[in-house]
Amino acid sequence: MRFTFPLMAIGLEVVMIVLFALFVQYDTGSNSSKANSTESPAIDVETSMDLYPHFQDVHVMVFAGFGFLMTFLRKYGFSSVGFNLLIAALGLQWGTFIQGIFHSHGQKFQIEIKSMINADFSTVAVLISFGAVLGKTSPIQMLIMTIIEITIFAANEYLVFEVFSASDIGESMTIHAFGAYFGLAVAGILYRSKLKEGHPNEESVYHSDLFAMIGSLFLWIFWPSFNSAISDNEKTQYRAIVNTYFSLAASVVTAYACSSLLESRGKLNMVHIQNASLAGGVAVGTCADMEISPYYAMIIGSIAGVVSVLGFKFLTPLFATKLRIHDTCGVHNLHGLPGVIGGLASIIIMALEKSDPVKMASQAAALGSSIATALAGGLITGAILKIPIWAQPSDEDCYDDSVYWEVPRRTEYDNRFHDLLDFTPLEREA
Amino acid sequence: MRFTFPLMAIGLEVVMIVLFALFVQYDTGSNSSKANSTESPAIDVETSMDLYPHFQDVHVMVFAGFGFLMTFLRKYGFSSVGFNLLIAALGLQWGTFIQGIFHSHGQKFQIEIKSMINADFSTVAVLISFGAVLGKTSPIQMLIMTIIEITIFAANEYLVFEVFSASDIGESMTIHAFGAYFGLAVAGILYRSKLKEGHPNEESVYHSDLFAMIGSLFLWIFWPSFNSAISDNEKTQYRAIVNTYFSLAASVVTAYACSSLLESRGKLNMVHIQNASLAGGVAVGTCADMEISPYYAMIIGSIAGVVSVLGFKFLTPLFATKLRIHDTCGVHNLHGLPGVIGGLASIIIMALEKSDPVKMASQAAALGSSIATALAGGLITGAILKIPIWAQPSDEDCYDDSVYWEVPRRTEYDNRFHDLLDFTPLEREA
Amino acid sequence: MRFTFPLMAIGLEVVMIVLFALFVQYDTGSNSSKANSTESPAIDVETSMDLYPHFQDVHVMVFAGFGFLMTFLRKYGFSSVGFNLLIAALGLQWGTFIQGIFHSHGQKFQIEIKSMINADFSTVAVLISFGAVLGKTSPIQMLIMTIIEITIFAANEYLVFEVFSASDIGESMTIHAFGAYFGLAVAGILYRSKLKEGHPNEESVYHSDLFAMIGSLFLWIFWPSFNSAISDNEKTQYRAIVNTYFSLAASVVTAYACSSLLESRGKLNMVHIQNASLAGGVAVGTCADMEISPYYAMIIGSIAGVVSVLGFKFLTPLFATKLRIHDTCGVHNLHGLPGVIGGLASIIIMALEKSDPVKMASQAAALGSSIATALAGGLITGAILKIPIWAQPSDEDCYDDSVYWEVPRRTEYDNRFHDLLDFTPLEREA
Repeated sequence: MRFTFPLMAIGLEVVMIVLFALFVQYDTGSNSSKANSTESPAIDVETSMDLYPHFQDVHVMVFAGFGFLMTFLRKYGFSSVGFNLLIAALGLQWGTFIQGIFHSHGQKFQIEIKSMINADFSTVAVLISFGAVLGKTSPIQMLIMTIIEITIFAANEYLVFEVFSASDIGESMTIHAFGAYFGLAVAGILYRSKLKEGHPNEESVYHSDLFAMIGSLFLWIFWPSFNSAISDNEKTQYRAIVNTYFSLAASVVTAYACSSLLESRGKLNMVHIQNASLAGGVAVGTCADMEISPYYAMIIGSIAGVVSVLGFKFLTPLFATKLRIHDTCGVHNLHGLPGVIGGLASIIIMALEKSDPVKMASQAAALGSSIATALAGGLITGAILKIPIWAQPSDEDCYDDSVYWEVPRRTEYDNRFHDLLDFTPLEREA
Repeated sequence: MRFTFPLMAIGLEVVMIVLFALFVQYDTGSNSSKANSTESPAIDVETSMDLYPHFQDVHVMVFAGFGFLMTFLRKYGFSSVGFNLLIAALGLQWGTFIQGIFHSHGQKFQIEIKSMINADFSTVAVLISFGAVLGKTSPIQMLIMTIIEITIFAANEYLVFEVFSASDIGESMTIHAFGAYFGLAVAGILYRSKLKEGHPNEESVYHSDLFAMIGSLFLWIFWPSFNSAISDNEKTQYRAIVNTYFSLAASVVTAYACSSLLESRGKLNMVHIQNASLAGGVAVGTCADMEISPYYAMIIGSIAGVVSVLGFKFLTPLFATKLRIHDTCGVHNLHGLPGVIGGLASIIIMALEKSDPVKMASQAAALGSSIATALAGGLITGAILKIPIWAQPSDEDCYDDSVYWEVPRRTEYDNRFHDLLDFTPLEREA
Repeated sequence: MRFTFPLMAIGLEVVMIVLFALFVQYDTGSNSSKANSTESPAIDVETSMDLYPHFQDVHVMVFAGFGFLMTFLRKYGFSSVGFNLLIAALGLQWGTFIQGIFHSHGQKFQIEIKSMINADFSTVAVLISFGAVLGKTSPIQMLIMTIIEITIFAANEYLVFEVFSASDIGESMTIHAFGAYFGLAVAGILYRSKLKEGHPNEESVYHSDLFAMIGSLFLWIFWPSFNSAISDNEKTQYRAIVNTYFSLAASVVTAYACSSLLESRGKLNMVHIQNASLAGGVAVGTCADMEISPYYAMIIGSIAGVVSVLGFKFLTPLFATKLRIHDTCGVHNLHGLPGVIGGLASIIIMALEKSDPVKMASQAAALGSSIATALAGGLITGAILKIPIWAQPSDEDCYDDSVYWEVPRRTEYDNRFHDLLDFTPLEREA
């Protein structure tokens, strides 16, 4: 770890700079000294800038939303928010390049605000997968996963939007389902059988759950922007915003209801509230810009909230015990299942509206492709990460910042009350 | 609580979906297959979308601002931010419907970005009332209060804006004063005489006060958007933004001064800083879009900061002891008094500008109506909530998350140092 | 302190109100009853309002970003975020006035959204200097520093932009380098030799570092808006946004690499991550709107990330021991050095593009002026603050909220475990 990590990070940054030098340009205007008005600039700056508020909202979701959502782990907050920042910062550069190259078919390409939104989107897939393996990998492994996953993500994205011409405005299939199943595949390969019974550090404490709510709320608040950012006209953009707004509201109410119902004394579970409240945003993501009335969105959101909580309650433990897939953040319940719901909802709605069967087939192909490439890509990536040269933490060292970070110093007294100070809720050896 | 809460929540969500199915539509375009250009679309999407940045700012205030502002209670953070989310998610759906029905006079209606802003606004009234009863109610009671209060809120809003034609751009009277007095009325009905001397859990700890500052700052930052969101032209919108900006700056400075002055050693009180710093935003809310110079706004803000701190210091204890109204968050000092100041300021300014007396009368009617409907509505709601079937917490269980939430597990050692781990500042039995 | 602080604060607010009454107006329209269309309004509201999203982003950075970034100190969180709010609230009023007076040459002036952005900018300089002296001054001293520093800041800003006609879109020289060197000068004058070995309270704890990450992330997220806010056309605004986006991404990656490389076991240091990740935003600030390809921005950002970490590791301790300048937040490493890099980068780029040597001289003059006025102003301010009548905290009381704030009450038990509850990482006397 000592040298591998810094050298790999610096190496990757150098590669990014070189690739940008070779392939990225702003606009024809900046390269030609004569402003030739007959040659239309490649970028209409004014239209591009219209998306800036959307970009800022997505940016908050990526860096503050996802970053803090994962700080629920009591001793892994630094890594959660810190590696989120690192993954996304590297990812957005690589995503810009890869997506640009795909669209320009290997030629130089330009960057618009829309490119930046799409680059941020590509990092979201990695951050979702990071959530599945949270606490069990090294930052070196995460750098590698970032590069590989974004490449496969971009390939699938191209397939879904350019080849299948599918519709997935909120990228529920291409980002959420993809990221979740990719992450689950990696988690499966990297499964640690000795941690079958759990790990003392894999818990939250009171204040880490409040930090996580910061992340959860910012994701919830800005999801309408996420689901409408890549609209190509204001009308569908507006529809996507309104549908997402109401789908999210519905998933909150049903998530609370379901969480309470499933506990013997009716108590709410913070993990459900932090995650399942958001399920409506994912589930409506594919059809948000379609001509559906808001109550369709509310139905989708209501279902998503319930499914998500049921997933946390029953599916995630099952995955861990029976399928040997340990999903730390339960990404399958927020991004996986709701992402699939999103894809299926779009097909159902098209059927209800008696759409062209070809369009329905595109949707199905998109969903299938996203899951298939995710699983395949995740298995390959998992195999690469399993090579024992990436400083993966030992079983004891999982979910523990002090492996990678200088954590504030302790005294002997603190060592005695170490758990106390760490706000441990666990059994202490006396 | 075990079944009442989930069933009520799900029931309400089903009702919302049905109401939306019956009454809500996007725009004529989506219902007619022929795009008829002579028939002007009911929604001008482009103009509607101009308000999107404003909507996002208000959205942050509702969910992150108010949610975290109330996390100052040391053992009630989950409930504060969690029930804020639930109340607002249900409330925005109901508010959309109720406000829509009022404006369409019972017909189908459409949703624009402005509708979403107004729906978020309606939830703010409930969140303010929630602050008055914070820690002393069950989530079932809060679901009921949400439905009733938003209905009465919308009725008063209609009265104030459509019947009286009053001016209240920042809804200082219709949201802030209304929400505060409604909440105080409920709190009065639900008064717990056994808690006359206070409650051990009704305190903050160091980090809960910092969490609350997150909320406070986001409210402060985005208040100019709140006070200008329902402007109907850019000129008044801009005026409201600038006036709010400076009123808030002034209330910060005088709140700090007053807080320091009122403490024997000159020390600042976090409760004052978290709340009174915001008073300028409320107090200038009614006249923010009027033709006043910024220094008027600064005077209003300065006064509001002082009044708010005086309220926290002297009025709130008086309310609790003499009036038997226990106002947990001191909403009367941030929303009540400054809301009234807002209404009065608008009348004074109209008088200074020798406005039509009819307009001044409208303002007075608006203020009177807002307070009257709030008190009446609050008393009725309080009476309903007092019926002992809503799982209201016992006196001992007030201000305690563990009644409604699974709070991170403790050990025997932790139980012994239970207060310590909860970061208690209180007397411990040895 | 008991009376000086409140009286000074109120006095300053009264002065602000009077100055605004005398000099500030909205627009000619509000002062003339006849709307004269031939007389063009002094403010084009529509164009002004285009900057509103930018303004909101900068506003978040000032109040939430800087405010929380400084909460890393374990016992000084209230003061960090609280005094940040006070300084900025007073500062934006004074900044609005001073900047307005400079531009109007002593006449009445109007306020636009751009004025508000510039006023917020002026407070950033003070907040940076506050970071240098964090924990070692009284709020009275900070009120004084706010007034003096903003005045000198505005004078230098005028010099740089109006007299030298230099280019500094992100104000890396006029805000960041200026604020850093001003603060270092003040810190040098106020140096406390008895604290040469450090101070028990000058440390972070686990959760204070997470609070600081909230601030760090919001600064990182919105920096593209900061660096593009004062653009005068959409094309350069867009370029500044894109360049800043990539420069920040690069500085994250190299900051992580460098932080890991410099620690014997390869561990990351939260102080580096919280601060050096942002260095790219500062360093690209001068040339962000120039016609440079994104890879230039990435090179600048990469260098800035490394330089910043090296500064934290080697320079800051050196400043404290050899130069007797104790820089609490290490502002020299985030704002000082990267600010200088920003200025130098602009000159290098101009040279590479064979620009007019006069323009290069302007840049050099701007950089020199910013540093010179900062040092001079800081020395003078430091001398004034050194007068022992401003209730400066004693050496023992540094980095301690309880001097200025009512901190949640403690019990005898708590006093025994006082350190424990404060989450102290330090040696405890038994």
